[in-house]
Amino acid sequence: MSTISNSEIKLVRSLASKKGRRESGLFLVEGEKMVSEALDSDMKVRRVWRSSEIGEDTMAHISALTTPSPALAVVEIPSGDSPVLSDTGLYLALDDIRDPGNMGTILRIADWFGIDGVFASGGCVDLYNPKTVQATMGAIFRVKFKTVDLCGLCKSVISQGGSIYGTFLSGSNIYESRLQDGSDSPVVIVIGNESEGISDEVAQCVSERISIPPFPAGRHGSESLNAAVATAITVAEFRRRAAGGAI
Amino acid sequence: MSTISNSEIKLVRSLASKKGRRESGLFLVEGEKMVSEALDSDMKVRRVWRSSEIGEDTMAHISALTTPSPALAVVEIPSGDSPVLSDTGLYLALDDIRDPGNMGTILRIADWFGIDGVFASGGCVDLYNPKTVQATMGAIFRVKFKTVDLCGLCKSVISQGGSIYGTFLSGSNIYESRLQDGSDSPVVIVIGNESEGISDEVAQCVSERISIPPFPAGRHGSESLNAAVATAITVAEFRRRAAGGAI
Repeated sequence: MSTISNSEIKLVRSLASKKGRRESGLFLVEGEKMVSEALDSDMKVRRVWRSSEIGEDTMAHISALTTPSPALAVVEIPSGDSPVLSDTGLYLALDDIRDPGNMGTILRIADWFGIDGVFASGGCVDLYNPKTVQATMGAIFRVKFKTVDLCGLCKSVISQGGSIYGTFLSGSNIYESRLQDGSDSPVVIVIGNESEGISDEVAQCVSERISIPPFPAGRHGSESLNAAVATAITVAEFRRRAAGGAI
Repeated sequence: MSTISNSEIKLVRSLASKKGRRESGLFLVEGEKMVSEALDSDMKVRRVWRSSEIGEDTMAHISALTTPSPALAVVEIPSGDSPVLSDTGLYLALDDIRDPGNMGTILRIADWFGIDGVFASGGCVDLYNPKTVQATMGAIFRVKFKTVDLCGLCKSVISQGGSIYGTFLSGSNIYESRLQDGSDSPVVIVIGNESEGISDEVAQCVSERISIPPFPAGRHGSESLNAAVATAITVAEFRRRAAGGAI
């Protein structure tokens, strides 16, 4: 029978805030499936509590979710020391993605499409925010992730002969653009902020400006697509080409 | 100088709930841009209030948003009487989409890709929920929408010689499937519930089972994509083919 002390309750509750996570180097994982994926992953799980052991009231008290789940784990935030960029591969670079749901969904997309690493600017929402963690649906345990200076990253990629793609409303039609698959040199796709798009500083590093065409071409409906949706369509097209394109 | 009475305050606040919207036939639109799009649309705007007139405290009191915006409108919910299904076109059918963010994002995708109408099952989250309205980013004013019995809809489409597509993890690779563009007969793409997928009843009406392949093919990462993300990739691929495919 597992119990929870008052100091543990205080610690778990502190992990709902970025300050609490930074001070302890820990984050929360909630839900049976997520906890089981955490245990199966390379991350270090410090402790697991279940409502069957500590009671539903205590679980509701320590949970960061509106509807608490039966299981909660406290997991160590990876150091971020290990290198993510290699001399080949397809990567995402997130330029100030602020919405936790978008951030988590983008990790899930990266996982589905086997993206070799996700880089986030310092202005992005914290990946270890409980809402983001939930939205990744476990992808957080599988996708390589690092917070970096995006301009520095881009320079390093370019110096290796790689390419930097970015989506712009004024970019070339993605379906008519040549897309590097990352098999010879690293390829980075930059995803811009939800309302501002790609920042001017990062835009200067983008070598290939692409766009997702509305239908029919030139139609004026919505001004843009949601950031995670644009990521999904772009990454799917890179992967469709790499897989041989088919039809 | 516009003012707001106590009974108006009570009415506006009631629109945060489905019950309040059903009783009054009205919904809330918040944000300068959204209010201006509502005024430009075919929908009937009953009243607009601005915080410059009623004060920020009152606006915070009547707003359904965590961060109130400077403008709020009360708009009539369209009757839903006008026909949406035609003898040609590309449509979406949403089978119990429960998350307001997904629902709004799907409307935004439909707007971008010129979808001819969106049908929702009775189990979908209310389109006029304030969170859904915000997530549509104005698409709610442009996309044709109707709540219907999805099986009845599918039967009607099939009787017209149309096709019903649905995404299943076990479906055929979308990039290797023939996709009807809706120019000869109506084409419906069914989007399943976030955790359960397409219901058995509706699945029986699906004539073409398709899937979005992970990369590399057969890789086991995330078990699925978010519902709005799967919608985006699927619709983009239908429109890419219709536009001529290019590369």
